[in-house]
Amino acid sequence: MNATNRTIMIATAAAFAFLATPGASARTPSGRDIYHNGIPGKVTGCASCHGAKAEGGGGGQFPRLAGLPAKYVEMQIRDFRDGKRKNAIMAPMAKGLSDADAKAVAGYIAGLKAPYTPGKVPAAQTRNAGALLVTVGEPAKGVPGCADCHGPTLQGGGPEIPPLAGHSESYLLAQLKAYKSGDRPAGPVGLMGGVAAKLQESQMQDAAAYIASLKPGESPRIPRPERSHWKPHPQNPDNFAPPPVTALPSQPQERQMILLGERIYENTPKYASKYVGNKMSCRNCHLERGRDAASAPMWAAVPQYPKYRGKNKTVNTFVMRNQGCFRYSENGKPPPADSKVMVALLTYMHWMASGLPIGVKPKAAGYPKVDDPDKKPSRERGKVVYASHCAVCHGEDGQGHVVAGARTFPPLWGPDSYNWGAGMHRVNTAAAFIHANMPLGAAGSLTVQQAWDVAAWIDSHPRPQDPRYKGDLEQTRKQFHKNHPYDFYGEKVDGMILGEPGTLEKWEHEHPSGGG
Amino acid sequence: MNATNRTIMIATAAAFAFLATPGASARTPSGRDIYHNGIPGKVTGCASCHGAKAEGGGGGQFPRLAGLPAKYVEMQIRDFRDGKRKNAIMAPMAKGLSDADAKAVAGYIAGLKAPYTPGKVPAAQTRNAGALLVTVGEPAKGVPGCADCHGPTLQGGGPEIPPLAGHSESYLLAQLKAYKSGDRPAGPVGLMGGVAAKLQESQMQDAAAYIASLKPGESPRIPRPERSHWKPHPQNPDNFAPPPVTALPSQPQERQMILLGERIYENTPKYASKYVGNKMSCRNCHLERGRDAASAPMWAAVPQYPKYRGKNKTVNTFVMRNQGCFRYSENGKPPPADSKVMVALLTYMHWMASGLPIGVKPKAAGYPKVDDPDKKPSRERGKVVYASHCAVCHGEDGQGHVVAGARTFPPLWGPDSYNWGAGMHRVNTAAAFIHANMPLGAAGSLTVQQAWDVAAWIDSHPRPQDPRYKGDLEQTRKQFHKNHPYDFYGEKVDGMILGEPGTLEKWEHEHPSGGG
Repeated sequence: MNATNRTIMIATAAAFAFLATPGASARTPSGRDIYHNGIPGKVTGCASCHGAKAEGGGGGQFPRLAGLPAKYVEMQIRDFRDGKRKNAIMAPMAKGLSDADAKAVAGYIAGLKAPYTPGKVPAAQTRNAGALLVTVGEPAKGVPGCADCHGPTLQGGGPEIPPLAGHSESYLLAQLKAYKSGDRPAGPVGLMGGVAAKLQESQMQDAAAYIASLKPGESPRIPRPERSHWKPHPQNPDNFAPPPVTALPSQPQERQMILLGERIYENTPKYASKYVGNKMSCRNCHLERGRDAASAPMWAAVPQYPKYRGKNKTVNTFVMRNQGCFRYSENGKPPPADSKVMVALLTYMHWMASGLPIGVKPKAAGYPKVDDPDKKPSRERGKVVYASHCAVCHGEDGQGHVVAGARTFPPLWGPDSYNWGAGMHRVNTAAAFIHANMPLGAAGSLTVQQAWDVAAWIDSHPRPQDPRYKGDLEQTRKQFHKNHPYDFYGEKVDGMILGEPGTLEKWEHEHPSGGG
Repeated sequence: MNATNRTIMIATAAAFAFLATPGASARTPSGRDIYHNGIPGKVTGCASCHGAKAEGGGGGQFPRLAGLPAKYVEMQIRDFRDGKRKNAIMAPMAKGLSDADAKAVAGYIAGLKAPYTPGKVPAAQTRNAGALLVTVGEPAKGVPGCADCHGPTLQGGGPEIPPLAGHSESYLLAQLKAYKSGDRPAGPVGLMGGVAAKLQESQMQDAAAYIASLKPGESPRIPRPERSHWKPHPQNPDNFAPPPVTALPSQPQERQMILLGERIYENTPKYASKYVGNKMSCRNCHLERGRDAASAPMWAAVPQYPKYRGKNKTVNTFVMRNQGCFRYSENGKPPPADSKVMVALLTYMHWMASGLPIGVKPKAAGYPKVDDPDKKPSRERGKVVYASHCAVCHGEDGQGHVVAGARTFPPLWGPDSYNWGAGMHRVNTAAAFIHANMPLGAAGSLTVQQAWDVAAWIDSHPRPQDPRYKGDLEQTRKQFHKNHPYDFYGEKVDGMILGEPGTLEKWEHEHPSGGG
């Protein structure tokens, strides 16, 4: 008898034992009741398999449930019930739960906390391969790192994106396999199904073993040997490969500076707090730590500067270009050129550009061009696209998500998003970015028209003032916004004049959850 | 009868006419007397051929003399007299002048001012070729631009380096040919002989025609077409060719920024006056406008940054590296990263580095290594080398030269030179620079031992304090100077402790000519 069959028998026995208990209450059960005691005559208590603290049981066979987002748990119960998520034990349980029961028990589970003991640290090869998948994924195949969606400590990414931390290796591996085989639904936007389809079984094993070995609160880390054999060498700018993400220079101070730059890049509000006025990081617009060729990679920007920019009508050094990002996309103030923040970012970005010829613009520079839409972009259509394709990560209210104190997805409008001077506020720029890259891990699933429509929806919400505004909306619009065909600055939308003083504050007042 | 023979006849007739004049005075003649009236019975007056104002005559055949440096004129008279400078007319004149006469007439000539009318502007091809030779020379052959020694308006470079401005095309061409044929001595350090030997006759014609066409006070300019066909392209870092000096980007603001950067580079005290505390320019240590592969070219520095520097024990951006030059070699204060001076310099330097792979150190980076000397460098031997090879340009007192208000050669010590924190204050660095590059236009003419000796002589003179000095010479020496085997900071030389407060001031008081 294998472990699975044995635990099924135990679980079934426990269920029948419960059904046999006389005098079970007939009142509507609470989530706590259901979890611990089940519903007499219908389902056994979850605790009997998943543990009294929902810490999981059966040697990893019954997953930890404590702290799973309520919405996610409800979805699973529904999927078990409908047979979309195939599971012999859970199917009958789910069928015994009404929608109200499911909601109640999901809410109870979400509030539970339970300690856990990490699995054993795997051997170096598995550990390194797993760590790389968890942090970086496999960009060449369009596989994001697990942490990209499930959060920097794998604490979960939002109401529909569960934590991975605390799960057993066997459970994680089984789920990846189930996503690949179709025994689990592909998940929101089909994301996990798509990701799992691209993974080899050995990769699933590496990732599962590595995740299970992480201590509570531990961040997965890119494996980086003390010395790498990679050395900068001349490269073709149109067929460029940045240094492997595992490589660093051997000079200790340069190494540390690059790592600091990467930290700032990945979590700008935390590591460059003095200079950031919103909740956005460099990584939000330039994916794969600035390496993604489809989202204006940092390496492709480096060799172009100093160069003239129409935006400020002068020759910009690369420092000045970065300062522009802080002023607009970060809605903050420019870090001085000799500040540690700027030096670290520059060192990080130059390292990524190793081998590119100075002064030659690589083809990957800037966002890819997107075709013109057939129809004028429509906020109304965009709203629908947003709900089906974007809201899972960026939230129904566009404010992204914060889980366990850590931001997982950026806000797309409101006070904590990019301001009216940022490039991304222009519908054409946003459409290009979205079409080439979104949804993360499922790029290419939006049509050109959908990309333009959803960009119009996103960019027609209140956001922080254009820092070039000097008290006259119309003048600011004429001077800085007139040449952009799809620019909502100064436009009337839903009874608001976008960019008008007070509009953002009014919106904020009506959306107190904003900001995370 | 050709023009030369006719003028010889006229001149000779005039001389005889003079000799025939009765009642010529027997008193010691003044320079003015000699110039205008000659010395009865010996020489005819210079004015009869060279003009009453020394403006030249005979359609360019008799050169303009007004304002020629006295020392240079004396040298010529001596050379005519000795037959080293071959000239049928001047030889008998020179023989008629005693050393005292020569000195007197040379002094008078030096004080004369005379207007001149430039020659006609030559056709584009000649003009461009001439302008390039005059400004840049032919670096591949080791030919400096004429302006490098004769000054930015060809106003003359020092007591032994005459102005070229105001001379006729025919005279200039004849002199270049005479240098090449040996009809004129090769000049101080053999420089002009060496340069002329490398020129084709067509080059001589181009240069002569261009120089003669310049208006009084006009600077020769690098010919730069509005549009050049050169575009940045990937290049091998160890076999690198910077953009042609005539090429510029077509984007107007970038073009202007590069030209401003080049101006600052070439005359830093003038165009970056706020940030310069001495009389040195970038060009003085990094030759050929920062292109010379043998003097730490700017293009080879660009791709290396950001990188760690032991000097300030941190990772330096390229801005910070440039700021270091201003602090030490320029004895000034660092231009802010966003100052126009810094942006212009960066834009200029990045342009020169076009095509170099980022992060790859080109072989030309830094000064070339120089072999160790056989004997310990000697100030005494160095002093002799200095007098024979360096003083003509840098002055007997090391203070360089200023002619007609424009600096032509930099001071090597004293208050207007680099300070005790600059790389060049180290004898090994100076020896490497000198051996590879000096004398300008005659590189390779000093042995390794001579380079070390003269470097020791130069770097054992008072100069501005190390800006890292905080009141304790010994502490500064131990912290910043102990690792340099040939560092005179804190050493006792000629009864002075170098670097000790007051030493420079005392030296300055004793050398009031310093500073130019």
